[in-house]
Amino acid sequence: MAESAVPPDDDLRRVPDTFTLPDWPRNCWYAAAYDVELKRQLLPRRIAAHNLVMYRRASGEPVALEDACWHRLMPLSKGNIEGDNVQCGYHGLVFNPEGRCVFMPSQKTINPAARVRSYPVVERHRFVWVWPGDPAVADPHLVPDLHWNDDPEWAGDGDLIHLKCGYKLIVDNLMDLTHETFVHQSSIGQRSIAEVPFEVTHGPNSATVTRWMENVEAPPFWRMQFEWKRGEPPGKVDRWQIIQFQAPSTIAIDVGIAPAGTGARQGDRSQGVSGFVLNTMTPETESSCHYFWAFVRDYNLTDQRITTLLRKGVAGVFAEDEEVLAAQQQAVEAHPDKQFYNLNIDSGAMWARRLTDKMIAGEAHDVRYERSAAEAHELDGSTTRVEATEADARRLGVA
Amino acid sequence: MAESAVPPDDDLRRVPDTFTLPDWPRNCWYAAAYDVELKRQLLPRRIAAHNLVMYRRASGEPVALEDACWHRLMPLSKGNIEGDNVQCGYHGLVFNPEGRCVFMPSQKTINPAARVRSYPVVERHRFVWVWPGDPAVADPHLVPDLHWNDDPEWAGDGDLIHLKCGYKLIVDNLMDLTHETFVHQSSIGQRSIAEVPFEVTHGPNSATVTRWMENVEAPPFWRMQFEWKRGEPPGKVDRWQIIQFQAPSTIAIDVGIAPAGTGARQGDRSQGVSGFVLNTMTPETESSCHYFWAFVRDYNLTDQRITTLLRKGVAGVFAEDEEVLAAQQQAVEAHPDKQFYNLNIDSGAMWARRLTDKMIAGEAHDVRYERSAAEAHELDGSTTRVEATEADARRLGVA
Amino acid sequence: MAESAVPPDDDLRRVPDTFTLPDWPRNCWYAAAYDVELKRQLLPRRIAAHNLVMYRRASGEPVALEDACWHRLMPLSKGNIEGDNVQCGYHGLVFNPEGRCVFMPSQKTINPAARVRSYPVVERHRFVWVWPGDPAVADPHLVPDLHWNDDPEWAGDGDLIHLKCGYKLIVDNLMDLTHETFVHQSSIGQRSIAEVPFEVTHGPNSATVTRWMENVEAPPFWRMQFEWKRGEPPGKVDRWQIIQFQAPSTIAIDVGIAPAGTGARQGDRSQGVSGFVLNTMTPETESSCHYFWAFVRDYNLTDQRITTLLRKGVAGVFAEDEEVLAAQQQAVEAHPDKQFYNLNIDSGAMWARRLTDKMIAGEAHDVRYERSAAEAHELDGSTTRVEATEADARRLGVA
Repeated sequence: MAESAVPPDDDLRRVPDTFTLPDWPRNCWYAAAYDVELKRQLLPRRIAAHNLVMYRRASGEPVALEDACWHRLMPLSKGNIEGDNVQCGYHGLVFNPEGRCVFMPSQKTINPAARVRSYPVVERHRFVWVWPGDPAVADPHLVPDLHWNDDPEWAGDGDLIHLKCGYKLIVDNLMDLTHETFVHQSSIGQRSIAEVPFEVTHGPNSATVTRWMENVEAPPFWRMQFEWKRGEPPGKVDRWQIIQFQAPSTIAIDVGIAPAGTGARQGDRSQGVSGFVLNTMTPETESSCHYFWAFVRDYNLTDQRITTLLRKGVAGVFAEDEEVLAAQQQAVEAHPDKQFYNLNIDSGAMWARRLTDKMIAGEAHDVRYERSAAEAHELDGSTTRVEATEADARRLGVA
Repeated sequence: MAESAVPPDDDLRRVPDTFTLPDWPRNCWYAAAYDVELKRQLLPRRIAAHNLVMYRRASGEPVALEDACWHRLMPLSKGNIEGDNVQCGYHGLVFNPEGRCVFMPSQKTINPAARVRSYPVVERHRFVWVWPGDPAVADPHLVPDLHWNDDPEWAGDGDLIHLKCGYKLIVDNLMDLTHETFVHQSSIGQRSIAEVPFEVTHGPNSATVTRWMENVEAPPFWRMQFEWKRGEPPGKVDRWQIIQFQAPSTIAIDVGIAPAGTGARQGDRSQGVSGFVLNTMTPETESSCHYFWAFVRDYNLTDQRITTLLRKGVAGVFAEDEEVLAAQQQAVEAHPDKQFYNLNIDSGAMWARRLTDKMIAGEAHDVRYERSAAEAHELDGSTTRVEATEADARRLGVA
Repeated sequence: MAESAVPPDDDLRRVPDTFTLPDWPRNCWYAAAYDVELKRQLLPRRIAAHNLVMYRRASGEPVALEDACWHRLMPLSKGNIEGDNVQCGYHGLVFNPEGRCVFMPSQKTINPAARVRSYPVVERHRFVWVWPGDPAVADPHLVPDLHWNDDPEWAGDGDLIHLKCGYKLIVDNLMDLTHETFVHQSSIGQRSIAEVPFEVTHGPNSATVTRWMENVEAPPFWRMQFEWKRGEPPGKVDRWQIIQFQAPSTIAIDVGIAPAGTGARQGDRSQGVSGFVLNTMTPETESSCHYFWAFVRDYNLTDQRITTLLRKGVAGVFAEDEEVLAAQQQAVEAHPDKQFYNLNIDSGAMWARRLTDKMIAGEAHDVRYERSAAEAHELDGSTTRVEATEADARRLGVA
């Protein structure tokens, strides 16, 4: 099974030729704003290479329009909200939430063709999502599941950061947490992350990487939380990281610790502390993206002090990634002749890329990407256990 | 007549294909410096994509040379004036005002081919004009008429500003003053500008937009001036804006107010206050330009306090445009796939573009732009009255 | 002889067509760091368009590796030194000084193909040199001769500056010192540099420009040094500048003064003061380079005060060049349609370009550059005396 689940480099490079595909799928929901960002003010933002202006109607409902006036391309975001409409700040044309022009200066008749593009928009899980592709297939059921972000059984907060790297580099980063050992030594990193075996499973549009570190020391970030909940330091713990990827760019990570041997792996986490790191990345350009995140916990739900401390702590960890990812993006651009190579640890990231490439190729109707029925089936689901430290790299063909 | 004077979109897009033409004509005079800018110092400036170095001879006459030494391309503007000549600051070559090399280091004989380009230059109406095209046809009679700027019957001052937009966007801006309602609400804007009818006329190289707002309130900028001249506030006024375009990029705007019904429209402006907004734009690159302007008045000619207040006031108004125009330029670059659409209010701007395109096409000898005799005749002169608020946009085919 | 040594413009432009050749040779040693810059720390630097990371082993020996991890291209310079190896800061891969991967996270078996490029490196004359081309031909005997920089008979110091110009513009600058008259008037410039005759000689890979100014005033920089050594001001002096070029970008300039008529030109410099200006330029990109320099003297060898004063003085002179060269580079880019023309004073620079072009063409095996045997012979050596002030530019065909 290992051979099929972790395809060799050669195969990956053969189908699809991702370098001839667009960089991201269009027919999907991308987070465009945190709920608190969107007000009765015009918010410009570039989403998947589209310039958008967003605002709320008087009723609170979000609106997303193309940020270029039909008349002379002036950014509508430089204008004003008029009721539920937006008025251009240059010549005063007014567009309604559907993008239709409802006022032109100096004329009574309005050209019925005068309109700007309106984007499907949904507010869910504390994010405002937009659909940059074909509106006819914009199904709200397809919004990625990040329900923990406004589930009353979980408490926490997050933020939006702008990263100078393509969104795929963040997917790579989150699908392989061994980097914590080297990048986040002082908070969540520990040697055992890079040492213990992990398991990769996948479905048609999702992939999961599961890693259990049993009977280990708790790193500072978790020791602190354990003490907040239980009032005493933990001894040896069982620590878990279950990374759940939803194509193309949403990752919910089920994380936590429990005292060693109290049954967490078997399903009883009641003795420990649990959290979710919620992440969804929205491409801005090919070399930059909007990174929306939150950290939520399942204990002391109303303690705002803990919420604030955790938000600041996680923000500090992400700032470490930020520098690494910008350096990596620059390196990618400086070496157009070079490609990435994959290690065992990249099994999860490879599945994420494969699933995203499948989405993109499906949209592109690109004849170069004709997967056989067998291959399509292969993507439908299988489970692989990667005994990382025992792995024979040559057998897997990935390192 | 309206149909022929305001051609439908389709026609505009058919001939000429302006996107395959150069961005500006070469055989014309462009303002390169305000008179006070040019001294016995080397002034570098990029004019219509040419790098120039300008200075005055001992006699005061202006000189404009290519700003790149014949020898090693060093900018001559980094060197020094020597008498009426300029000496390169690197190896000491000296060029005279005609661009001929008159000194070379370490050699007695000077290569007769050693020269830099010298540009035709004329000083008039307080501007120094240069001709970037064929010197053989550089006729000083073709300098645009901005005589009000040094006419003893008018007083005022102006400035040069650098705008991050193509010069055509400023022509658009000035040919349609309805934008004052939205961009300059606190100074010169008023709702009636966007409401009253206006008239467009044109000649072979000029176009005029005339707008009379009768029996209206005076906006702050004009109320203030009326009080300066007459010592009392105006009541209701007749206000005029007569925009006079000279291809490719000079616009003199005859503006003012007079007490309502005192005959200003019929020719007697003696009860009111009159001014001219003088504008000439010089392309620097395809996305930036030099904007030379002045505001002159016909009253209290020696009151320097008024001159200063008006210069500062107009500069404040133009700063509002500056932001709008830079945003529009960025939007144009961000949306290469999109085009401009025209409203009724754009009739004047459309004629300006047509006349400039005709100049450019004439220089390009581009076979794709073969106007028929009939079309050429059409450009020779006609008058159209656009009843803007009554207009049927579909009939005009422009909105 | 003059005609053949200083070929006419036409000939220069005919062979080789340098604009189709790469900008620099690859198979040669380039200075990559001053000795004091390289420590037990990771130093990133772009050398001849290669991104390098450099450091010293525990033994002090220099190492130069490609600055991009094999795995995900992360710059290794963002990681850490581990013993004699470098560890990537992202996922912890370790590479040894030969560039071979010796550790991968989460796996025991290391892909034998996992490596980064290691560059040949030599430390000599206080510089660390790297060879960006074919390692098989990286011969340490080819390191340019700048032995004065650590010769116990000479004392001095220097620095590295980063210039925003192509390395060839600095070669031009140093091969013709008449620019001192105009750029460095207050320190080393004097009119006679641009007036006296000079001599150009060349070998297969080197060219020399010799200029003797006899019975002249000493400029401030030299008067000062004479007083330091001799305790009294010099009277009239004989001054020399012997510029020794080694292709592609190393120039040692033998400079000094001696009391007029004391035999310096005939070989006895004992009454004067001598120095060497040592220069080696390393291309970074096509429009920027690293400029390594030193100034050494043959008197008062242990006086650190003199060393410091001279280093600061020469740095001040080079800062004047820095501005000139950056302006020239910008001018070259702004005028892609223009070419350089040559004066008599450019004879040395023309030979330098010719020799460098020969190196590049030899590497390119470019059929467009097939020099005949006769031409090859011509490059082997000859001496020309250019009587600059008597020269007939038309006869030479160079001006």
